[in-house]
Amino acid sequence: MNFQYWNSEIEKMPRQDLEALQVKKLKAAVDQALKTPFYKERLTGAGIKSGDDIKTLSDLRKIPYTTKHDLRDGFPYGFLSIPKEEVVRLHASSGTTGAPTTIYFNAGDIKRWTGYVARCIYGTGCNKTDVFQNMITYGLFTGGLGFHQGGEEVGMLVIPSGSGNTTRQFRLMQDFGTTVVHATPSFLLHVESKMKEEGVSRDSIKLRKAFAGAEPYSEDTRRRIEELLKIDVYNSYGLSEMNGPGVAFECQCKSGLHLWEDGYIGEIIDPDTLEPLPDGQTGELVLTCLCREATPILRYRTRDLSSFYTDACACGRTHRRLRRITGRTDDMLIINGVNVFPSQIEEVVMAMKEVGNNYLIVLEKEGVLDRLIVKVEVGANVFMDDSRLLNALKEKIRKTLQAMITINPKVELHESGALPVSEGKAKRVQDNRPKDV
Amino acid sequence: MNFQYWNSEIEKMPRQDLEALQVKKLKAAVDQALKTPFYKERLTGAGIKSGDDIKTLSDLRKIPYTTKHDLRDGFPYGFLSIPKEEVVRLHASSGTTGAPTTIYFNAGDIKRWTGYVARCIYGTGCNKTDVFQNMITYGLFTGGLGFHQGGEEVGMLVIPSGSGNTTRQFRLMQDFGTTVVHATPSFLLHVESKMKEEGVSRDSIKLRKAFAGAEPYSEDTRRRIEELLKIDVYNSYGLSEMNGPGVAFECQCKSGLHLWEDGYIGEIIDPDTLEPLPDGQTGELVLTCLCREATPILRYRTRDLSSFYTDACACGRTHRRLRRITGRTDDMLIINGVNVFPSQIEEVVMAMKEVGNNYLIVLEKEGVLDRLIVKVEVGANVFMDDSRLLNALKEKIRKTLQAMITINPKVELHESGALPVSEGKAKRVQDNRPKDV
Repeated sequence: MNFQYWNSEIEKMPRQDLEALQVKKLKAAVDQALKTPFYKERLTGAGIKSGDDIKTLSDLRKIPYTTKHDLRDGFPYGFLSIPKEEVVRLHASSGTTGAPTTIYFNAGDIKRWTGYVARCIYGTGCNKTDVFQNMITYGLFTGGLGFHQGGEEVGMLVIPSGSGNTTRQFRLMQDFGTTVVHATPSFLLHVESKMKEEGVSRDSIKLRKAFAGAEPYSEDTRRRIEELLKIDVYNSYGLSEMNGPGVAFECQCKSGLHLWEDGYIGEIIDPDTLEPLPDGQTGELVLTCLCREATPILRYRTRDLSSFYTDACACGRTHRRLRRITGRTDDMLIINGVNVFPSQIEEVVMAMKEVGNNYLIVLEKEGVLDRLIVKVEVGANVFMDDSRLLNALKEKIRKTLQAMITINPKVELHESGALPVSEGKAKRVQDNRPKDV
Repeated sequence: MNFQYWNSEIEKMPRQDLEALQVKKLKAAVDQALKTPFYKERLTGAGIKSGDDIKTLSDLRKIPYTTKHDLRDGFPYGFLSIPKEEVVRLHASSGTTGAPTTIYFNAGDIKRWTGYVARCIYGTGCNKTDVFQNMITYGLFTGGLGFHQGGEEVGMLVIPSGSGNTTRQFRLMQDFGTTVVHATPSFLLHVESKMKEEGVSRDSIKLRKAFAGAEPYSEDTRRRIEELLKIDVYNSYGLSEMNGPGVAFECQCKSGLHLWEDGYIGEIIDPDTLEPLPDGQTGELVLTCLCREATPILRYRTRDLSSFYTDACACGRTHRRLRRITGRTDDMLIINGVNVFPSQIEEVVMAMKEVGNNYLIVLEKEGVLDRLIVKVEVGANVFMDDSRLLNALKEKIRKTLQAMITINPKVELHESGALPVSEGKAKRVQDNRPKDV
């Protein structure tokens, strides 16, 4: 494979140099953080009075963690390190959980962020001959403008189509020969279903690649999208607290997401003991932003669960790779005392050929017990009147799920297209259990 | 008044120099246009083989007009003058009338466009201390990204809030001390009504200015928004064929929109004879783009009706000012043989204090005759049970309209908030007459 690098020197930098660069940038980030009301108190409380108190990378551990809760408490300007008139943009996330988080950027911050996204896109083999349709919400959400800027930086023809309006999306793909799209995995599956439904032939579009992110998804979902649409799907990871997209991305090897360690320091910690874990072990991802001046955030507990690969990547990049996010510490469901991640259910369901492109997890209370109901759309090729086949499929899903999560779920089958589709991040869990029981 | 100029040398350039600059840029634009399939045929057909065939500004008249119809016929690449791989973005407009128009940009085009929008914004007195909430759709529509880019270029804090979600818009204004917004005039009126309805006090927001565009509106609507929200409203003019916003804009004198003549050549023509009209006379605006390489468009018939002011502007800018667009050649309604522009109806309705923030024009067929129904929301301070007062108001509207347009309309009064609100461009006319009678 012919790998291409946006910034070869940085991407293949020897680890030692990369870590020296991190220390240098971390010193600057600490100095910058000390200009914010929040970190002035938090860091001096931990005995850190200047960036010079950081001598080696292991001094990172002297810095206390920052949580989502801290960000909310610091609203609106507790994390702002520069005069307001130097700010050129803010992005705010309502998040998948809870109240908004606001991140401020100066002009240099936007430029650096754009560079990281361009690096991600270019690393998947895209170049200025590509036509890139950005099928995601523009505005306060970072996914739209973030990918837009990165795509233009690479020199692709960017179509700012935004989310939704599936029929118009096909038309744009056909009219302009779109080769790459960016979307949530659930929207990609929806697009495929709709194409079938409206009789749009695969040959009428030139699509070759998709960047999928903004919601966790399983390897089986990736494979399903790749097979159905006959494209390469690249996994994208980012979060608004760390600018948005451009934090970690798959290269053409598609085996883990390179965390851009010249821009972010990544750690995996045990979410209970808060102790750092060695590479290879799964825990909560903690990120320190090294590439943003206006809103410094140090050792941010992302609540995303992942681990670092320990082997080298065939692409030659030295930046460590994250395993796909399997869930968040706070989207874990406790069902009759058993811990279940929605991603475990997705993995089972999306691996089955007979299953369609959408599913929904519903939780209810039956007396004192929790009841897990998994609603699954059947594939377009399954006849809804073949009850023997349907019962067999239902039983197969139930058994495989039970083997995976130890809970015995109720499985419901639905016709293709019957379950609700969201245009932004998919809502896969409906927890109808009363809150205070 | 202290005027400020983004580019003083250009904005106050003596007319003679400005026209020499136009000739120079027009030569280049013609050369660029000759690289497109459409203009290669059209220009050589008119005897123009190179930019050198343009010697003076009056040679412009040798160039045939380009129409919306031509743009559609040239879809998708008939107007593209550069290799596809040099294109970094496209914007497409579904337009207020008819099928999509596509404009391609290279990186330099985006940069130049951004400069013109920044010039507009800065000329209204904004600077980097301002907080700018861009309450308009992002994506394929040029209004969102165009103002976003210009706002960042000026160094304002840009909040990419997008359109809709009125309650969230207030919250953002309150949280971040928004001083300037961009929106359609109808959305601004809707915001004001909603503020009253939800009890949001004017003192809780710091708003000082609004840029209003994307749909024509009357001077009375401007005054109404200014009085209700206690802000300055600046009139913005642009169209996707000429990049989008940034074509013409009001300065702090608010007496006409300076057309940026170093980027665009403006002419007013008689839409019937197609002969150019002298400054001061009203006709169809024809624009030639001098600031875009990827998609050259020469002598484009905008179908917008306007005229040039003949006096100098107090601000010292030498670029001629356009009168606010009073309508489009193609949105003229023919009612029982009489020509009526929706703007004439708006002017009457919005001038009345007793009238609320929304209205709708409905056309129906009664036998062989057209029937004009004007539905008007009453102000929040008018009691809907005071039938004597309501009847008097109805009669007043009816009479004033009849005096203005010679048609006797049926007037209907509705409660505040009862008529439909659109989040993008307002739909003010519902023509229910059968098409082929």
